[in-house]
Amino acid sequence: MKNLLSDKESGKPIKVKVGNIIVGGDEKIIISGPCAVESYEDLLSIAKELKKLGVHMLRGGAYKPRTSPYSFQGLEDEGLKIMNEVGKIVDMPLVSEIMDTRDVEKALNYIDVIQIGSRNMYNYSLLKEVGKTNAPILLKRGMSATLEEWIYAAEYIMAEGNLNVILCERGIRTFETYTRNTLDLNSVAVIKQKFRLPVLVDPSHGTGLSELVSPMALTAICAGADGLEIESHICPEKAISDARQTISIKELSKIIEDVNKFTTYF
Amino acid sequence: MKNLLSDKESGKPIKVKVGNIIVGGDEKIIISGPCAVESYEDLLSIAKELKKLGVHMLRGGAYKPRTSPYSFQGLEDEGLKIMNEVGKIVDMPLVSEIMDTRDVEKALNYIDVIQIGSRNMYNYSLLKEVGKTNAPILLKRGMSATLEEWIYAAEYIMAEGNLNVILCERGIRTFETYTRNTLDLNSVAVIKQKFRLPVLVDPSHGTGLSELVSPMALTAICAGADGLEIESHICPEKAISDARQTISIKELSKIIEDVNKFTTYF
Amino acid sequence: MKNLLSDKESGKPIKVKVGNIIVGGDEKIIISGPCAVESYEDLLSIAKELKKLGVHMLRGGAYKPRTSPYSFQGLEDEGLKIMNEVGKIVDMPLVSEIMDTRDVEKALNYIDVIQIGSRNMYNYSLLKEVGKTNAPILLKRGMSATLEEWIYAAEYIMAEGNLNVILCERGIRTFETYTRNTLDLNSVAVIKQKFRLPVLVDPSHGTGLSELVSPMALTAICAGADGLEIESHICPEKAISDARQTISIKELSKIIEDVNKFTTYF
Amino acid sequence: MKNLLSDKESGKPIKVKVGNIIVGGDEKIIISGPCAVESYEDLLSIAKELKKLGVHMLRGGAYKPRTSPYSFQGLEDEGLKIMNEVGKIVDMPLVSEIMDTRDVEKALNYIDVIQIGSRNMYNYSLLKEVGKTNAPILLKRGMSATLEEWIYAAEYIMAEGNLNVILCERGIRTFETYTRNTLDLNSVAVIKQKFRLPVLVDPSHGTGLSELVSPMALTAICAGADGLEIESHICPEKAISDARQTISIKELSKIIEDVNKFTTYF
Repeated sequence: MKNLLSDKESGKPIKVKVGNIIVGGDEKIIISGPCAVESYEDLLSIAKELKKLGVHMLRGGAYKPRTSPYSFQGLEDEGLKIMNEVGKIVDMPLVSEIMDTRDVEKALNYIDVIQIGSRNMYNYSLLKEVGKTNAPILLKRGMSATLEEWIYAAEYIMAEGNLNVILCERGIRTFETYTRNTLDLNSVAVIKQKFRLPVLVDPSHGTGLSELVSPMALTAICAGADGLEIESHICPEKAISDARQTISIKELSKIIEDVNKFTTYF
Repeated sequence: MKNLLSDKESGKPIKVKVGNIIVGGDEKIIISGPCAVESYEDLLSIAKELKKLGVHMLRGGAYKPRTSPYSFQGLEDEGLKIMNEVGKIVDMPLVSEIMDTRDVEKALNYIDVIQIGSRNMYNYSLLKEVGKTNAPILLKRGMSATLEEWIYAAEYIMAEGNLNVILCERGIRTFETYTRNTLDLNSVAVIKQKFRLPVLVDPSHGTGLSELVSPMALTAICAGADGLEIESHICPEKAISDARQTISIKELSKIIEDVNKFTTYF
Repeated sequence: MKNLLSDKESGKPIKVKVGNIIVGGDEKIIISGPCAVESYEDLLSIAKELKKLGVHMLRGGAYKPRTSPYSFQGLEDEGLKIMNEVGKIVDMPLVSEIMDTRDVEKALNYIDVIQIGSRNMYNYSLLKEVGKTNAPILLKRGMSATLEEWIYAAEYIMAEGNLNVILCERGIRTFETYTRNTLDLNSVAVIKQKFRLPVLVDPSHGTGLSELVSPMALTAICAGADGLEIESHICPEKAISDARQTISIKELSKIIEDVNKFTTYF
Repeated sequence: MKNLLSDKESGKPIKVKVGNIIVGGDEKIIISGPCAVESYEDLLSIAKELKKLGVHMLRGGAYKPRTSPYSFQGLEDEGLKIMNEVGKIVDMPLVSEIMDTRDVEKALNYIDVIQIGSRNMYNYSLLKEVGKTNAPILLKRGMSATLEEWIYAAEYIMAEGNLNVILCERGIRTFETYTRNTLDLNSVAVIKQKFRLPVLVDPSHGTGLSELVSPMALTAICAGADGLEIESHICPEKAISDARQTISIKELSKIIEDVNKFTTYF
């Protein structure tokens, strides 16, 4: 791994600004919201709760990459518009996954941070396309990507001129079946030691089990993560997708408290 | 895995026609050519040799998905044009990987079969886009895709109306480091038993070592594969990419002989 | 991997003699029998059928390594004695797994080939102990052992003076859940190219699904395997353990026919 | 996973006593020492330093399970005796790996805690043998063991009557090659939620890189680990084995400070 823009030796640590929020600075950044945008009313009610808790950014899936073509594929453009309206009301930056090169420009009319999902980490056309914008990009690790490949995916974006890359570890695929994925916190520690980019952790996908989200969220912060991306819902059990790993507003509130306590002392 | 278009119970075996060639019929189909299209002259000289051997289709990479953005990314559009010219001369159908939804329509002016590479198996936007054409699609398995996910990726294409899907097993990612990937021939046997789609095997990526291509090519046929996709080059050691797993024309000739001998007796 | 006794450069191919049978010679060797020895009567009836088919050696589990301590652990010593009695009647060499260093010497009073199971491939004390005998050792690959570690496990036996090692590929642990394991036939091709030791394949554990045993058995032979170890039972569905991957005598008969046909032409 | 002795529902949390030390209580337990016992002098000088730092138990390898039979196999019995002498001087309980059923009884004359290494987690004969003692057993997770298999391995010991089992997560084998293993802290969180047994973490094997030991040690505590097992050496670069993952006394001192700080506030 040489000649990288993301290497610590290639420059000082990168702090990604999203409005007034700085990812990679002293504050631990919390991104939360439902797996999928389901309706304006639902998203607004979640968003208001999240805003009260001090969540920094609102996430929601408009385009949903589902294993089966017969599963709900998201509200698509309509989902982005709903997010945009809700975002204005609660005054929170918006994060949503984009999967098609043709949607990048349009999406930036509605949202602030483009998420590249795990399934598209190797989609180099998409990486180059978002590299041509100057929007903050949240780059999730591919489900079986090596650390080297993940960093190179970031470089695909950076090499086009966009240094606003935020990495996000979300668990890797192993033989273990008890948890949905194996959260690889070694990778977070490596990134903080060797690379310039901020890194978040997604304990929702990283465990796949709502009861593990809270312990692994704090654990991720302890490993050095600059923040967390967590799936939450007013009624987790009613979530259209990823219900098994979605937590309630109350559980999220406790996580934020713990993270704040941790950062006070360490 | 229910209600699938690809399930054996959902219809009779699918034979994909590429010109006069039938993938999924009695004849074992050989697709070969260089990893990357390097120049008109080189491709033409390889293609002439392959044609003599009875290779059915010519493959060549125009858009190359490389781990590093700093590696050679392929000749892109120019590569497709070179393929097209060479294809006319040798009268062979052409197979090349397309990675961007915006390139699908254009590409079909030059090539016959669109390859979806391992890194884009989960690129559902691309799958839907090629599903809207009626071109034959060669769908490689994702490097850590489960059989179920792979079949669903095929369904993404089929659900849009294009049933011309050819699966291609190319090895999966495991802890083993001696070989580049672990060729999963169990999956080939399962597909032949349970699904309607033809399936090829790529022993070049499936092993990563040229000396293993020959034994694993025949082994794949024995597992039930409908054909093979193999990287070959006039001078394997001079190949710009994947040199370590590329075989010579002479080695390919021997493989074709073995495959023919096998199919005569079994 | 240097200075190995098992390296092709270190000597000529090793043929392991078990009575009159030669493993690693021209003939493909078939080892079959039930997962577990269940009773004298059952084993005898299976053994007679296997003998008729030309199966070379009889396998049966006396000591059973089960995931749960609460599962049937095998008939242990009694199982070895039953095997011995049955073996005399049908005149077949006997293969059984031994797990404890203290059982090695005793076991050789009853059986001919000591099997080291997948779970004990790293049990170096046991490897050294069987290395001190001159009995044939059937060394299964650990479920997540690299090729290098497996070969070194063989060297643990050989370094003690016992060169009678037969390797056996039985599938490795990957993320795929459709099959019990992923049969790694790349490893068989590598062993035949680089190492002196004979190698068998166990398609029963390698797939975990009885309907895949037959196609993968022939495929393994095609990859270069010197023989097969297959779980069979008079009534597969009544087998105490591994019923889902056990085949009937009739299915086994068909496999042997196919293998003989294959070896006639190749 | 039913009817388990280790299930939370089957009884109250198990605290394992080693002399005056309680594993699974309020205090985080630190076990440290060299990978291999190299000499009396070296071990004594390390042990004195560790004692000063407040390390609770001294570890050292007497029987070393090495991938190659040609690598240093440990001082064996002599190593146990050295440990015993050093342990008396510094007044620390001793932890060492035993690999052969025949060594269990003898070993308990010299050491306090029997470690079952990763390679022997499936060695059910050994598990049953140590289950017949009442010594504390440190049971490391197999390198590709599922959580379920690991818990069942503990049950193998417990079912024989010995409930003094301490689990130890040490990283699992994945496709990632940057780190030696992937430390699975999800598993620690699950164990603390669902099972009665105390669990330690070994960040030395879990990362394979000395610079990651410190961040992952604290992270493991945050995930709920009851303590740590860490390889340390007076001169890490001179360690006979595992030098790349061994830390200095100074680094260990800092880790202990961090752990104490963490436990003060959380």
